[in-house]
Amino acid sequence: MTGTEGRVDGDGSGLPGPAAVLPGLSEEQVRALRRVGRAWGRVSVAPEVWRRALPVEPDVGAFPVSAEAGRAWFGRLVPLPPLRVRAAGPRAAAGVQAEAVSRVRRVLVGAPLASSAFVTERMRKLVALPVLSADALSSVAYGPEAMLTVLVLAGAAGLAYSFPVSAVIVFLMVAVGVSYRQTIRAYPHGGGSYIVAGDNLGPVAGLVAAAGLMTDYVLTVAVSIASGIAAITSALPGLTPWTVPLGVLVIVVLLAGNLRGIRQAGALFAAPTYAFIVAMFALVAAGLVDAARSGFQPVPPPSLPVTETVGLLLIARAFSSGATAMTGIEAISNAVPAFRPVEWRNARTTLSWMVGLLIAMFAGIVVLIHLTGVVPRSQETVLSQLAHLSFGQGWMYVYVQAATAAVLLLAANTAYNDFPRVLSLLARDDYAPKTFLRLGDRLAYSGGILLLSLAAVLVYVAFEGQTNSLIPLYAVGVFLAFTLSQTGMVVHWWRRRDPHWRKSLLFNATGALLSALVLLTAGISKFTSGAWVALIAIALFLLVTTRIKRHYATAREALRLRPHAVELPAPTSTGPLAPATRAAAADADRETEEIPEEIHHLSVIAVATLDLAAMRTLAYAASLGQPALAVHISTTEDEERRFRAYWGLWGDHLPLQTVLSPYRAVVAPLVHYIETLHRLNPGLTLTVFLPEIVTRHRWHRLLHSRTASRLRHALRNLPKIVITTVPFHLPR
Amino acid sequence: MTGTEGRVDGDGSGLPGPAAVLPGLSEEQVRALRRVGRAWGRVSVAPEVWRRALPVEPDVGAFPVSAEAGRAWFGRLVPLPPLRVRAAGPRAAAGVQAEAVSRVRRVLVGAPLASSAFVTERMRKLVALPVLSADALSSVAYGPEAMLTVLVLAGAAGLAYSFPVSAVIVFLMVAVGVSYRQTIRAYPHGGGSYIVAGDNLGPVAGLVAAAGLMTDYVLTVAVSIASGIAAITSALPGLTPWTVPLGVLVIVVLLAGNLRGIRQAGALFAAPTYAFIVAMFALVAAGLVDAARSGFQPVPPPSLPVTETVGLLLIARAFSSGATAMTGIEAISNAVPAFRPVEWRNARTTLSWMVGLLIAMFAGIVVLIHLTGVVPRSQETVLSQLAHLSFGQGWMYVYVQAATAAVLLLAANTAYNDFPRVLSLLARDDYAPKTFLRLGDRLAYSGGILLLSLAAVLVYVAFEGQTNSLIPLYAVGVFLAFTLSQTGMVVHWWRRRDPHWRKSLLFNATGALLSALVLLTAGISKFTSGAWVALIAIALFLLVTTRIKRHYATAREALRLRPHAVELPAPTSTGPLAPATRAAAADADRETEEIPEEIHHLSVIAVATLDLAAMRTLAYAASLGQPALAVHISTTEDEERRFRAYWGLWGDHLPLQTVLSPYRAVVAPLVHYIETLHRLNPGLTLTVFLPEIVTRHRWHRLLHSRTASRLRHALRNLPKIVITTVPFHLPR
Repeated sequence: MTGTEGRVDGDGSGLPGPAAVLPGLSEEQVRALRRVGRAWGRVSVAPEVWRRALPVEPDVGAFPVSAEAGRAWFGRLVPLPPLRVRAAGPRAAAGVQAEAVSRVRRVLVGAPLASSAFVTERMRKLVALPVLSADALSSVAYGPEAMLTVLVLAGAAGLAYSFPVSAVIVFLMVAVGVSYRQTIRAYPHGGGSYIVAGDNLGPVAGLVAAAGLMTDYVLTVAVSIASGIAAITSALPGLTPWTVPLGVLVIVVLLAGNLRGIRQAGALFAAPTYAFIVAMFALVAAGLVDAARSGFQPVPPPSLPVTETVGLLLIARAFSSGATAMTGIEAISNAVPAFRPVEWRNARTTLSWMVGLLIAMFAGIVVLIHLTGVVPRSQETVLSQLAHLSFGQGWMYVYVQAATAAVLLLAANTAYNDFPRVLSLLARDDYAPKTFLRLGDRLAYSGGILLLSLAAVLVYVAFEGQTNSLIPLYAVGVFLAFTLSQTGMVVHWWRRRDPHWRKSLLFNATGALLSALVLLTAGISKFTSGAWVALIAIALFLLVTTRIKRHYATAREALRLRPHAVELPAPTSTGPLAPATRAAAADADRETEEIPEEIHHLSVIAVATLDLAAMRTLAYAASLGQPALAVHISTTEDEERRFRAYWGLWGDHLPLQTVLSPYRAVVAPLVHYIETLHRLNPGLTLTVFLPEIVTRHRWHRLLHSRTASRLRHALRNLPKIVITTVPFHLPR
Repeated sequence: MTGTEGRVDGDGSGLPGPAAVLPGLSEEQVRALRRVGRAWGRVSVAPEVWRRALPVEPDVGAFPVSAEAGRAWFGRLVPLPPLRVRAAGPRAAAGVQAEAVSRVRRVLVGAPLASSAFVTERMRKLVALPVLSADALSSVAYGPEAMLTVLVLAGAAGLAYSFPVSAVIVFLMVAVGVSYRQTIRAYPHGGGSYIVAGDNLGPVAGLVAAAGLMTDYVLTVAVSIASGIAAITSALPGLTPWTVPLGVLVIVVLLAGNLRGIRQAGALFAAPTYAFIVAMFALVAAGLVDAARSGFQPVPPPSLPVTETVGLLLIARAFSSGATAMTGIEAISNAVPAFRPVEWRNARTTLSWMVGLLIAMFAGIVVLIHLTGVVPRSQETVLSQLAHLSFGQGWMYVYVQAATAAVLLLAANTAYNDFPRVLSLLARDDYAPKTFLRLGDRLAYSGGILLLSLAAVLVYVAFEGQTNSLIPLYAVGVFLAFTLSQTGMVVHWWRRRDPHWRKSLLFNATGALLSALVLLTAGISKFTSGAWVALIAIALFLLVTTRIKRHYATAREALRLRPHAVELPAPTSTGPLAPATRAAAADADRETEEIPEEIHHLSVIAVATLDLAAMRTLAYAASLGQPALAVHISTTEDEERRFRAYWGLWGDHLPLQTVLSPYRAVVAPLVHYIETLHRLNPGLTLTVFLPEIVTRHRWHRLLHSRTASRLRHALRNLPKIVITTVPFHLPR
């Protein structure tokens, strides 16, 4: 199933606006900002003074808009072009590595794209049909087979039910199709299940729909690839042992392609779908011609071991398995803005065509299976068996298999467009990490693409790339989203009462009811065979997203600007060594300082030995002109005496405190000392200055104590403690 | 093989002195320190002013000497006791986790020990003998068997050579024993191979000896445990499939025990060795009594498949395999200071006793094997077969097997004392990371213990816990260290020419020559069957240690205080916004500032949005009174305009620079901007202020951008750029 699920902002460009990534300030926040600003103005140095004091010209030119500009790649930084031409300096070593990474990346992912390169192509119906219906139409490659796989368990008696079950599925396709025609009219900007359910049924329903969608996208990738690989291994049985590695390879290729920013548009993406439609119609036509020769006398299926009797549960399982043939039917309703004007009208026409094609192909294949007596086999797909019967081993057989594999691959790719977009919608609404809102330098949501690939690989490998094992998981998510989306539409019509609302409500209600029935059927009949996995995934999704939302709410509340309530102290000189007051003790752990004059500094310099790195740190701290104190951890009294002697030789320029650590640890006593200082003087802001030795080679880092980073880690939980690392760079 | 290899400092306490961890300053450095101090004195504020300005009482009491004090454990910090009693504050969550870790750790490792707890027990000869000779004597559990395993490949013809080969090994034991008697006299403070070879043959020879020793210690653990587990599985064949997990379990137990700081002393450690000696003599005696009954008529060995013919190579391999029976013979010479006075005399006596016992046990077992016709079998050790023949299944059999396993376990434990100590000697001499010099809170060299365990597990698992596969690797390292140590003694005597030097030189030369012969024999005859692994390990060791030494030399040179050569600027006011000069441009990338007045500041505050965290960072930076500039990265022009408007609403208190990032990246343009600022103004020290949101739960970190840490990483390679993170703590 697929769907260009909704838009991040209303302008239909698909690009998240600035408000999505960095939300604006509310009225209340703007008022607070003004008040804070006035408080600064009362006591601080005037802005002009700051500006005049600036020793640099801040404007150094815009960030270079060249195809070679540096970017962050999984947190690794590529050097920037204007700085690359400098002489071989101390950074050269790091530069060589980074440049190699940059080159590999350029080849794999391509040059970065500016935001202005983001355009949405408007599609003609003839292009939109194949692009948007690849997922739905490709479902006939596994839907009928999934149904038969269940029925055949009851032998010939079971297979006799294939016609009635298929008829119900066809009716369902019509009902859901008609239902989505209503959605297209109501949501001309794109009505994804998350949006429709959220708008009309409330945020929880939206989340549940999103959970259904997300599991569904993951399974679309896994099922489509499993089925596509099955089409290939049916033609080339020698490849069967490689099912799992081949599938993983396909996912990796999709990952790389989508990180490059493949867009589903143009002739390249239209071809496989049309090729598949032609292949299916040729197959059905050839089969019917063959059957006509024998007077449409069905070939009886081979006698089969009967492992189950025909019962309600078996029929229900067959029905919900076969219903996977309609996954992807909602794609067009999500992508209305991608059509040429009048968008909703063109989208509706395309939807009708798609449903028509889907029903024709589904029905044709079911009839053909009945006539030929083909039954599912583990080594060869049903479609491959039918093609063999009609076309033997010739080129037409190869064509059918190739077209099937291609359209399934294309269907998998649609999930790569939709999953990251739904995730970005969730991130916009605080339900997912904000990082999923960020477009990569190829204008693709890199985070979502990676997550989808990872999840798809996990599912694909866990189920060993077997379509039949994956199908039971599939139906639940799809029909959960269908049900909620259409129920949302019912509420929509009831509230709005537009002209013709009764008819629309009736159609949507029918669709919702039938989808709910399939959902129930699938959830109950397939619970033990895999649906429970999907249900647990959905429950986990709900749990995680609501907790993320809660965390963001807490964080936003904590970070909100507050009207400044603390009494201002009388303006004091900001010269060096201004005496700090011990007031504001009550305010110690509430991180509220917003005015420079309220901050009373104490610089604490950690010194282990008197080398150049330590001297630079001492000089740096002293040059800030705030009260300063050097701290040294001694492991023995001898060492303590010796260090004090050196300190005296230097001239005793700063107060020194030595701490004896009988257990030889360095970090713990230092943290203890700083924490105690903070407890005794809660009004002070302590700045801890750490010399940090920066090595040129990564492995050299092992040779130096990680004291600085361990201290940073240990102190980061304490309030009002600022950490300043003064780097010292070793030569190569 | 074992040996309490040398001492870190000369006082024999085994505790590294302060000079080892933090070396003192040289005369030249002290002069430079004074000169730097005078330069500060000329321009800086007087020390008294700093002291008076201090807003705190720096002395907050000594670091608590309680058994519950916190320590760093793999970089994880345990909260300190005086701070644990505070009310449930925002840190409580972190505290609960940390406290749980602390408790688990207390149970496993025990309370920390103060340095004053480090005592060296002086041992009586009767205690020293078992403690120091466990490794050597236990070798007879695998030495004879290793020899026979080779000879048996040539069938009965090969087994006939067991007497002559054993005779050569016994002669070798005598020669090496006499040779080490000379070392004891010359190095009464402990003469480990690394020290003796390094002292007399130069640093490279010392390193090669250390390489031999280190590989040897790793193999001592692996071989002793493999052999000990074999003793157990011989008695309980049902445990055979668990050989590998059992061995790994033993290593983990040794790891935990040694992290607790087990000392090899006292009755507990004497018992297994005496028990083993008793067991071996009982075994030999019982065997001889049985043989006497049959008139010392040897039982012919079973007819065996002959896979090799008797040749020089086979004999050589058998010889070098059997020679592993003398590993550990040098232990006593390393541990001379642990004896009661007169140390060297007692040590010599003990050594003679040990060699005597070793020869008696080795010879007894070889004779017994010959008489009983026992041949090596993969399922049962030779010792177990002999015990079965003499004692059947009774308690004496169980006793022999238990004593063998116990003494082998004890032998493995000796490596845990010696490997970390040699590593600390290497670290003292800059050949290994300084972290191996650090004594853990239980006064054990935790780093070395961990490294040894890791290496031993790797070797043990790679060779599947099979003694016979490990033996070929073993001999090379042992005899490399023997040869270099004794060659060093030859040079020692030649240089010193003490009384009796000729005799000592002759004994040592004999030992060295014979050891070198074994080394060559082992290296050549077992090259393909495993010695190449040991040789590669030794070569890698040499490569890595010399590169570490070179890096430390570079680092020390770079960190050395230098006489201050830069012209001092005229003293300027250190008040707020003191104008910075653009001078010292030539000095830009040479990190030499040592005087506060030479540092010209520019504060750069990275601001993404105007929330509380950003306002605090702005206030913090402004309160330092240095020229300041705020930088904002905008991804679109709209966002840029909006941010500038907010900045104006706030009051435009600080200069603002916005940078447009067309590729939506944040870190890269910021780094680019800061780097460009630095290039254009190389005389300035840039301080980058970053607000950092600190979350209470680890998983919440995923929900916030890692901009601060990514910037820190990206900027750390640039000179003169200091990074200050201003934390903002989210509530739970």
